[in-house]
Amino acid sequence: MDTKKIFLNESELPRQWYNIMADLPTPVEPPLHPGTGQPLNPNDLEAIFPMPLIEQEMSQERWIDIPEPVFEKYLMWRPSPLYRAYSLEKHLDTPAKIYFKNEGVSPAGSHKPNTALAQAYYNKISGTKKIYTETGAGQWGSALSFCCAQFGLECKVYMVKISFNQKPYRRMMMETWGAECVGSPSSETASGRAMLAKDPDSPGSLGMAISEAVERAVQEETSKYALGSVLNHVMLHQTVIGLETQKQMEIAGDYPDIIIGCSGGGSNFAGLILPYVKDKIEGKEIEIIGVEPNSCPTMTRGKFAYDFGDLAQLTPLLPMHTLGHNFVPAAIHAGGLRYHGMSPIISQLLISNLIQSKAIPQIETFESGITFAKTEGFISAPETNHAVAMTIREALKAKEEGKEKVILFNWSGHGLVDLAAYDDFNKGKLSDYKLSDDIIQNALKDIESLPKPKQFKE
Amino acid sequence: MDTKKIFLNESELPRQWYNIMADLPTPVEPPLHPGTGQPLNPNDLEAIFPMPLIEQEMSQERWIDIPEPVFEKYLMWRPSPLYRAYSLEKHLDTPAKIYFKNEGVSPAGSHKPNTALAQAYYNKISGTKKIYTETGAGQWGSALSFCCAQFGLECKVYMVKISFNQKPYRRMMMETWGAECVGSPSSETASGRAMLAKDPDSPGSLGMAISEAVERAVQEETSKYALGSVLNHVMLHQTVIGLETQKQMEIAGDYPDIIIGCSGGGSNFAGLILPYVKDKIEGKEIEIIGVEPNSCPTMTRGKFAYDFGDLAQLTPLLPMHTLGHNFVPAAIHAGGLRYHGMSPIISQLLISNLIQSKAIPQIETFESGITFAKTEGFISAPETNHAVAMTIREALKAKEEGKEKVILFNWSGHGLVDLAAYDDFNKGKLSDYKLSDDIIQNALKDIESLPKPKQFKE
Repeated sequence: MDTKKIFLNESELPRQWYNIMADLPTPVEPPLHPGTGQPLNPNDLEAIFPMPLIEQEMSQERWIDIPEPVFEKYLMWRPSPLYRAYSLEKHLDTPAKIYFKNEGVSPAGSHKPNTALAQAYYNKISGTKKIYTETGAGQWGSALSFCCAQFGLECKVYMVKISFNQKPYRRMMMETWGAECVGSPSSETASGRAMLAKDPDSPGSLGMAISEAVERAVQEETSKYALGSVLNHVMLHQTVIGLETQKQMEIAGDYPDIIIGCSGGGSNFAGLILPYVKDKIEGKEIEIIGVEPNSCPTMTRGKFAYDFGDLAQLTPLLPMHTLGHNFVPAAIHAGGLRYHGMSPIISQLLISNLIQSKAIPQIETFESGITFAKTEGFISAPETNHAVAMTIREALKAKEEGKEKVILFNWSGHGLVDLAAYDDFNKGKLSDYKLSDDIIQNALKDIESLPKPKQFKE
Repeated sequence: MDTKKIFLNESELPRQWYNIMADLPTPVEPPLHPGTGQPLNPNDLEAIFPMPLIEQEMSQERWIDIPEPVFEKYLMWRPSPLYRAYSLEKHLDTPAKIYFKNEGVSPAGSHKPNTALAQAYYNKISGTKKIYTETGAGQWGSALSFCCAQFGLECKVYMVKISFNQKPYRRMMMETWGAECVGSPSSETASGRAMLAKDPDSPGSLGMAISEAVERAVQEETSKYALGSVLNHVMLHQTVIGLETQKQMEIAGDYPDIIIGCSGGGSNFAGLILPYVKDKIEGKEIEIIGVEPNSCPTMTRGKFAYDFGDLAQLTPLLPMHTLGHNFVPAAIHAGGLRYHGMSPIISQLLISNLIQSKAIPQIETFESGITFAKTEGFISAPETNHAVAMTIREALKAKEEGKEKVILFNWSGHGLVDLAAYDDFNKGKLSDYKLSDDIIQNALKDIESLPKPKQFKE
């Protein structure tokens, strides 16, 4: 029997995050002020973020130290194990070697605390008393709730209403860690009330919820806002995943031919791949695939353009792949992938051809999740099942081609709080949503009048 | 920063289980045939268990090899980590050192797969096609479902109806792994129908559900029954927990003064303590505490006597602490601790004064669980919170006494599928149930006519 899991010692947990901004062949274009259309000054963000995070957002330093208190709290679950999926390989009868990084071992059950912990810490030392945020399926909201408890901060979460209603366990998790969680759109904010006036039965969206959280954060002196994906500092914090994985793959004696991650705003995907993108820039041959849902095809059918991060147009303009800030994705179960935009860093890698993107229909993701649960045991989050599905596709392709490929994917979280989604699948209630070009073209009209990035293509 | 978690290498996973029957100062009295009242023959159990498990049930061998296929599958999550609870210690401001063994890392989220995997394996090699079982809160049923999928066995679970209705996520887990789950009492069995005739709205109990599963198992040629606690072979398989912990505590450089586990049928408690009980028999000073709910005080207020394991009196008579097989515990959230009996091994240790028992009220267990979640991050199963609560009591006692005690407890599982219980607590819906002596004395009347063990005391 070969090794099933590779653990690192606590002393091998990385002491620094990796900032890819220092190594990009083509730099990420700057965020723009939503009012003036001019590149953002650090001070423009002061109302919503503490200064250390703003500095990280704009930093060009290659390596950034992980503060000691964050390092210590990381040890609650990090380094996370790297697994070899022997049972899945055997089931697929593939010559491929499949590895997965298990980010489900954190108390919140996903990779999200990697950045939530850092953000809570930097807020704490900057005098923040309360953090407002939004959450889709609830992984980010629960992660931030857990991490705010670690540093004695208050936390309030606006949760996309359809998920708030469908997934009460996520709210209960947040409340158990002492946070407050309400469904969005809510009547607590001007932007929420405006949305409710337009559609009292709105299922909500991440874009709407962001508007509510930002609105609250700027109103209170000692309150800030936190975002769980998309932004550069979030990608930075998540690189702890890939840095650990590189050490573990070295112990395993393999180097990945293919790296796979699901991608909603891009954070778990970036976390795993960025240290490997560095290798690729330096000459390594690696295929890197970001996987998104057919019904929210930001990378595969969206445009690279400047766009708002939220519906109410409160955020800076970000250079990113987008379906337009008014795009409301179908109510698929992978709530964490229901976002109109994509991390500027991931978007830049995509247009620089350093990574590729694929979209997968919902039913295939659940079929793959069931296969994974029956072989490797663990029940994946619906988001994670997109990575599982692509891994299975690639492993079967390797079988067809008779190649012993090494496939590595990010098992970004477990699905124990998302079992209602499996229940729908098991009962045959799920269908694959067909997204028409018209809908996409229509949504993209709303960004036509916005400034264009230099790398914009019609 | 000292080490937060101690992992073992996969090569350090124990190769043998420890059988305490070889070392008990006073042996466990034999199970009796329910019809004849005579000591059971191995053949009497053949209708419900495969022969390798019957042999283990009656074995006096000190060390029993873990079969290679079970060892390999254990590696899906074992060795499990031992944690030092620095944050909880700091919060309590105690001089005590608190360690916990994290059994929540298994795919099913608890210690139950330690025996489910072994039982599925022995059934597989004995020609079993389908396993019937019962489950209370659902931890055992989901563990067996997961493990049956590993060895290609069918699995059907009778789930105590109140939990079946309150905890749909557990059923969904089982179905995701390919098992079938129905609420008990059901109309599928004669014993279920009899119970429904008596009370159509019966919330069910473990005793009832066992009757249904056993009835089905004996009716089909290639079907067997499996039990997730109480029996000797279950305790045996769980010793992998304590054997690992001993190696980890040695690495930590500490030896426990106090060991704590929650105890329903006794399996997670036994799993941690039995290897330490061996130390105690050999002269070590250790305080060992089994913790049960106030509302189901099998050890603290029950009697040591022969009793049936189930309501319909289908099982052998076991020498154990019991509240009587007709005792129906209050509907507390720690469903896994709602059982009228106790493992004969644990019961024997109790009357031999090798361990002690304490009962704790429900609200204190949830308060402790919240404290644990806010400090150590992880949300515990309601059962596990009994161990957490006793640990906090002991840590505060050590503080009062100014003693640097080393406390070790079994964190037997996470509570992410039990969040509705936390929701009830957070909303102030829980109360502490006061169990009168009359109710207990009444329930105990039903065992007066049964044979008495030699160690019986009036």
